[in-house]
This record gives sequence, C-alpha cells and structure tokens, in this order.
Amino acid sequence: MIVEVLAVGTELLLGQTVNTNASYLGEKLAELGVDAHYQTVVGDNHDRLVDAIHTAVGRADALIITGGLGPTQDDITRAAIGAATHRRMLFSEEAAARLRKFWKQMDRPFPESNLCQAEYPEGAVQLLNPRGTAPGLYLEHEDTQLFALPGVPAELRPMFDAHVIPRLRQEAGDDRVLVSRVLRTWGYGESMVAVLLDDLYHASTNPSMAFLASAGEVKIRLTAKAGSDTEALALIEPLEAEVRDRLGAAVFSVDDQTLEQILLDSLREKGWTIGTAESVTSGLVATRLSLTEGSSEVFRGSVVAYAGEVKQSLLGVLTQTVETYGVVSPETALAMAEGAARVLDVDVAVATTGVAGPDYLDYPPGTVSVAVRTPFGARTKLLRLPGDRERVRAYATTTALQLTRLGILGEWWED
Amino acid sequence: MIVEVLAVGTELLLGQTVNTNASYLGEKLAELGVDAHYQTVVGDNHDRLVDAIHTAVGRADALIITGGLGPTQDDITRAAIGAATHRRMLFSEEAAARLRKFWKQMDRPFPESNLCQAEYPEGAVQLLNPRGTAPGLYLEHEDTQLFALPGVPAELRPMFDAHVIPRLRQEAGDDRVLVSRVLRTWGYGESMVAVLLDDLYHASTNPSMAFLASAGEVKIRLTAKAGSDTEALALIEPLEAEVRDRLGAAVFSVDDQTLEQILLDSLREKGWTIGTAESVTSGLVATRLSLTEGSSEVFRGSVVAYAGEVKQSLLGVLTQTVETYGVVSPETALAMAEGAARVLDVDVAVATTGVAGPDYLDYPPGTVSVAVRTPFGARTKLLRLPGDRERVRAYATTTALQLTRLGILGEWWED
Repeated sequence: MIVEVLAVGTELLLGQTVNTNASYLGEKLAELGVDAHYQTVVGDNHDRLVDAIHTAVGRADALIITGGLGPTQDDITRAAIGAATHRRMLFSEEAAARLRKFWKQMDRPFPESNLCQAEYPEGAVQLLNPRGTAPGLYLEHEDTQLFALPGVPAELRPMFDAHVIPRLRQEAGDDRVLVSRVLRTWGYGESMVAVLLDDLYHASTNPSMAFLASAGEVKIRLTAKAGSDTEALALIEPLEAEVRDRLGAAVFSVDDQTLEQILLDSLREKGWTIGTAESVTSGLVATRLSLTEGSSEVFRGSVVAYAGEVKQSLLGVLTQTVETYGVVSPETALAMAEGAARVLDVDVAVATTGVAGPDYLDYPPGTVSVAVRTPFGARTKLLRLPGDRERVRAYATTTALQLTRLGILGEWWED
Repeated sequence: MIVEVLAVGTELLLGQTVNTNASYLGEKLAELGVDAHYQTVVGDNHDRLVDAIHTAVGRADALIITGGLGPTQDDITRAAIGAATHRRMLFSEEAAARLRKFWKQMDRPFPESNLCQAEYPEGAVQLLNPRGTAPGLYLEHEDTQLFALPGVPAELRPMFDAHVIPRLRQEAGDDRVLVSRVLRTWGYGESMVAVLLDDLYHASTNPSMAFLASAGEVKIRLTAKAGSDTEALALIEPLEAEVRDRLGAAVFSVDDQTLEQILLDSLREKGWTIGTAESVTSGLVATRLSLTEGSSEVFRGSVVAYAGEVKQSLLGVLTQTVETYGVVSPETALAMAEGAARVLDVDVAVATTGVAGPDYLDYPPGTVSVAVRTPFGARTKLLRLPGDRERVRAYATTTALQLTRLGILGEWWED
C-alpha cells in the first residue's frame, strides 16, 4: 500500500521548525513495510491545503496529515479536511466535555474559542490525544484512509502507534508480520559497529540488519518477516545471539528499554540506592535517573558541584586532591563519588568532572573523568569526547550511566 | 513571486535523513521576501520526480530542486529535469575536465562513471560547486526559473547564495524586505494568548501576526514587509509595544534569546550568583542554567533532594516544616530555597518540590511548589500542571526559571 505524509504549518515553510515528524513517520512506515512516495508541506492556507489533500487522496491509499489541529485561528486542518471531502462539520459534545475537563484539572478558565477543537467532518472518528487537547481525526474517503494528527511530536507519536499503525496493518492485508528487535549499544561508534558486523550485515536478508545512530547511541535493528511473531522471533534469535557475542557489554538493552531503566532495574534487584555528584554534567545524570516512574525508590539525590568550592564544602573533596591531580582528574571524580555516597547515604554513586568547552580549563574541551563507586568497589575512566559543549555533556552523561550499569553488575572495565 | 522547494532522495522518505535543506531554504526565502507555498519530497524515482517537477512548474515562478546530482545510479535529477522539460541531454567537456581535475587533485583515479555529472539538459546553465564535484543546474522553462542544487548542505548553501539569490531578487523585482520579530512568552497557553490578542491578530496585515507553541512556550511572530529593515522594524514597533502591554511579564525575550540566557544576563548585571534545590525537577533547572557557555561565572551548583531525608540532611529543611505543611508545599519549597542559598553560598536560589506522577503523593500529580529567593526577598507559587510525568517536570522547570527571572528583577507576582 502507498502512504503519503502531508505537514501543515507556515512555520515549516518559513524554516522556523524542522519537519522532524516527516522523518519520524517515514522511518515508522518503512518498518511497517508500506511505501511512502511523497512528503508535502503546505502553510496555514485553506485553499492550498484543500488542493494538497485532493492530490494525495487521488494517488495514495492512506494520507497522514500532521499539524493544524490547535485552537488558534491559523489551525485550519479540520475545516480543510471537511472542504476537501465535501462533508459538513459537526460538533462533538463529548470532545467539548473532555476539553472543559482538561482545563478544569489545570484550574484555568476555559477559553470558549477552544471549542473549535471539538469540531469534526461528518463521518470522521475523533482520535483521543493522551498528551494534549487536540483530538486527531480518522475518516475514509474515496478508498483512501485519511488521518490527521497533532504537529507536536510528543502528541503525534503515541497517537500514530495507537490509532494509525493498526488501521494501516489491517488495510495492507499482508498477513505476514514484520517483527523488529532493536539492540541498543553504547561505546562503539557507528562505523566501528559496521566493521564488527560487516559480514553478518551482508549475509542477512531475513532477518535483515540495519544500523541507526542517534546521539552517540548505535542501534542495530533486526527485522524478520514471517507467518507469526513467534516464527519471526525464532528467525531473529540466532542472529541476535551472534551480534551480542561480538559487541559484548556495549549492548545495554533491547527495543524501547532505556539505559536508565535497565540501570534502575538492576539496582532494585540488588536493593541498592544511587546518587550522583556532577560537575560537567550539572544534573544531567540525575535527570536521566529520575526520568522514569518509581525511580524515587532507588534514586535519592545529587550534588551538582559546578563551582570548585562546592566540591569541597558539600562533597568533602580535599583541596589537596584537587591541587595534586587537577579538578577534572579521575582522582577528583573518585573523591566526588565517595563524597556523594557519604552525604547522600547511597550504595552506588557516580561522579563526573570535566571540561565541556568551548574554553580550555587546564585541559582541552572534551576531557571528562567519570568515577563509579558500588559495594563491589570503585573504578574511574578518563574520556576524551568530541564535539561541542552540548554534545560533550550529553556523551559524558550516557557514558556515566553505562559505566554505572557495568559497576552495578561488577563487570569492571580495563582502564 | 512564488517559490517551491522539491527535495529528491529515498533516504528522506525513509526518515534516515531529516530534510534540513527545506527549513534552511525556507528561512532564506522568507528573508528574501518571496513566498514559499509548498515543500515536497520524492524518492529516487524517475516518473514521480518528473511528475513533481511538472506540478511545480505549473504553479510556481521558481522551483528549487535539492539532491540527486551525485554520480551514482540513484542520482536521477539531471535526467528527470530533461524529461520534464522535454530537452535532450548534452555533455559538457568543460565540466568533464573540472571533474578529472578534482580527482587528480585528490590523487585518486577518476571513476569514468562520474562523467554523468557533466551531463545537462539543453539550454541549462551548469552552476559551479566550490565544495564538491556535482555541478548545479539553472534553466528557464515556461516562465519558471528552475534550479537544481546538491543535497549536501555544505555544498547547497554557498551555491544558493551565489547562484539562486541574485536571480530570484532580479526576477522578483520586489526589492522590499521581510523582517520578523519573535516575542517569546511563558505563562499563558497558546489559546489564552490567542484570546488576549484576537483583535490585533485579525487587524494586523503588515506586520502580520502568527502564533507558534512549542513545549509550553508560546511565540508570537510579527512579520513586516517594507523597503528597508529600518522601515520594517518601524512598522513592527507599535504592534510589539501593544502585545507586550497586554502580555506583560509573560514576554521574556525576543528571537533566539533563551529564558536561561536572559536570566544569566540579569544575574551578571547584578553581580549575583545562583543555585538550585530540586526535588520534582531533579536537576533539570540546574541543567538549563549550565546550558550556555560561561554560565560557571554565576551558576554555582545545586542540591537534588529527591529523597525526603536529603532535603533535611543537605538543605537543613526542618522535619517540622515538612510534617506541618507537607513535602510538596510552598513552605517546604521556601525552606529548600533558603537552605540552598546557605549551603551553596549563593545570592539567588530557586527550589522545586512536587508530584510528577503518575502516582498520587498526598497531592495529585502535577502539583508543584516553586520558591524563589533573591536579595529582594522571597516568594512562592503553587502550580497545578497538566500532562504526564515528563511534561510536568519540563513545565515546572521553565516556570521555575521564569519566576526566578521575575524575582531577580524584583517583579514579584501575586499569589
């Protein structure tokens, strides 16, 4: 089946927003095995949007429209779909009630203008939006499935999974299932992973292998097509085992399970608590550790010691240590970790200190020391990270989490 | 004049590459004051590319095609332009010589297959590419200016400046410039902003007004067309003043300046330092404060007191305060802020405590208390935030920064 993606928003045409929804949906549709032939962007202009919908309906089996579902005057997607499909607009009391309830929960006066979000073209189904106020739309018109989703990625993504994927699968009629397992790795660059798996990559058709690199994490997607999920997984299993064997500890999880979830789970198993002492990452590790629900059971807190004196006053790092080894040294990181374990009263402590840049600070930008302290012992690692300030901080954060994961398992690295 | 951008590349449809060229060109075209009505993406498919070129030529004064000019089999743009404009393909000995020279300079054998890059449709001008091997193309067809540029951003950008801008300016004959100012606000939802500015929105044509909401921040873009930047800004000025008057303290900055930059600047002016005490935001405020270069001059550190005992042991919050008012109460937040000011030795301290959810914690999820303490005094605010855990934390963080900004200015809010 052939699918098109149509994005609505003058901010996209003006380049004030990058159309990441298109690439996200493109990747998801490829995983589903459906063909995407066109991506189109139109501005907040009724006539051009109506034209674009006509064109897409004329050549695609399914059309996914993103954006223009908000409550303001320039949100025109609802009306344009009605006009393009020659349907009158109806009003959903149920949706209106949901809107009023949402605002009531926020303790804020309900702007009557928002009632436009309760309107829908006759025959359309309103799709629930768990993350925001704008409902999506689904209707069938001239043998084309027509979906409208909010432009906000955080709202679009769960709605695509919940409302679009099942309908596309059904329509596609391909009763073979496509099953993917994504092995998530940290520690090797994409090109190194490609080298390590080169022969497997070329030898594998079903399951097929693909590499996806994002923010330093390299994902290896194994996709099998078979009569059932069980069969597909059976096809994937041996290849996955071989990949894990070659990449070892770099593989930290599968599919949607994040590094911090894995880490917190291993802490729960051991009944241990964790805290952080952060300089260069200034709270990024703590933020990741508290990202998931129920993290408060194991994550107790953090000392962000951005200024040198705070390392000493709150973490008890000795002036002598800093003066002897330097503020971004592994020794200082270790002292910070020991201090955090003490003042936060935790079993596991991870510390970061380094130079994010762009300026030198005794050491070149990208120099980062990480220390991990667990009941199994303590270990440090000196990193030289590439890229700008933001990238150095992000890479240092994920590396700290990865090393902490290994430290909790007692799988100490060579240094 | 009306311009369209057409990107060629299956990697774009598959989401392996984000179409940043489209946003780059969109922004440049807006600056030029020409209208961009559509952006389209097609894969490496001859027939669909030819169709897309036909459609664009039929409705635009200028078409900019990006990508598909490389030397491989799936680089089909040259031939597709020839087919769409019914021109035979010619071969440029001059371009061929440049290609051979380029490879000679790299000391690498010239792959004869690359000679396809010397082909061009009859009547087309080849555009020099200073950064790569693929020449661009320019031709006029049925009153439409047709440009083809390489998809590699580093090659596309200088070629757009050198070859496209001058021709578009000349063709447009409209020497007016388009100038935008974006007012960034926090505190009102998009729909409330729309209500507050409704009459201005409808009354304003030049400058025009548009709303952009992202992650709770609402941006108001004022765009004016005039003979010069000065004239355009003069047109924007009174409308901006009126908007600022209506939205008051909610407007925190203009254009690219972030809330944390503004905040750090105001601290530098006063010669004050800042620190945070965070529970529900667990380091997110500290992370934002240390995002920008040179933040270490004013940002000293943070105590992330995720566990209750840490609030007491590290921040000196009295058990009595927590037991009397509750752990997510404004009173507890205030005690945390006072504690942070003391232990971090800072002039300004901001504290957050609350329930991110999804579970109740005495209070419903979304209940967040913020306290700000500056040399001008201290103030708290009790928030009820919508959405899931991630959103509550994000909104609490930005709200804390916004309230801190006001506290530093001594512009205390009513509570």
